[in-house]
Amino acid sequence: MSTIFTKIINGEIPSYKIAEDENFIAFLDAMPLVKGHTLVVPKKETDLIFDLESEEYKNLWGFTQAIAKKIKSAIPCIRVGVAVVGLEVPHAHIHLIPLNNVEDMNFKNDRLKLTGEEYAEIQNSIINS
Amino acid sequence: MSTIFTKIINGEIPSYKIAEDENFIAFLDAMPLVKGHTLVVPKKETDLIFDLESEEYKNLWGFTQAIAKKIKSAIPCIRVGVAVVGLEVPHAHIHLIPLNNVEDMNFKNDRLKLTGEEYAEIQNSIINS
Repeated sequence: MSTIFTKIINGEIPSYKIAEDENFIAFLDAMPLVKGHTLVVPKKETDLIFDLESEEYKNLWGFTQAIAKKIKSAIPCIRVGVAVVGLEVPHAHIHLIPLNNVEDMNFKNDRLKLTGEEYAEIQNSIINS
Repeated sequence: MSTIFTKIINGEIPSYKIAEDENFIAFLDAMPLVKGHTLVVPKKETDLIFDLESEEYKNLWGFTQAIAKKIKSAIPCIRVGVAVVGLEVPHAHIHLIPLNNVEDMNFKNDRLKLTGEEYAEIQNSIINS
């Protein structure tokens, strides 16, 4: 069965996409810890990020670097944090989280409830930054 | 003034080293969230990880991949999580954290107090895995 991320990649589930190329995709997290919380995902379904083939793995991080710089420009934050947890969806993914303090990266926190308009505004500000 | 990580790199502050090459070093976190919590650090002092030059940045993640696989072999865990926060030390560093649940990556948790013997045992088990 496809993971939820594969369904997003295939367009079966909508997302607020930030960037995409042949191998990777970035979109806004549907349950964000903070505004601008973004997921970066390799299109090939692999559970553990460290099991990706070395070249693809390094290119995934390269793709992530460009996205993180755009987020940093678009979203007021001290820095963009990184987290790879993956205990819920067995499809490797990188969280990029604009941080103003360490508590912004606590995955036990309540998630923001944003309107479609708010998501679209964040999406546009990152894409156009 | 040198960061605490530069002092570790220069041997001015002792650490339980896991691996080292010309550009990068990995050692056990002195204030671990869980056993096996490891830091991977570029030797060149750069505050924000995403400001590293693209090739060095990708090589840092490549170095990290190998360390994470060793940790996964040595330490009982579901997977090895990744976090980049960096609000305390202005020298880019990657946390590798053996995870059994998402709470293991809560940076507000109390840190483990390990003896030198325990650190050395963890260090050896990772190096030899």
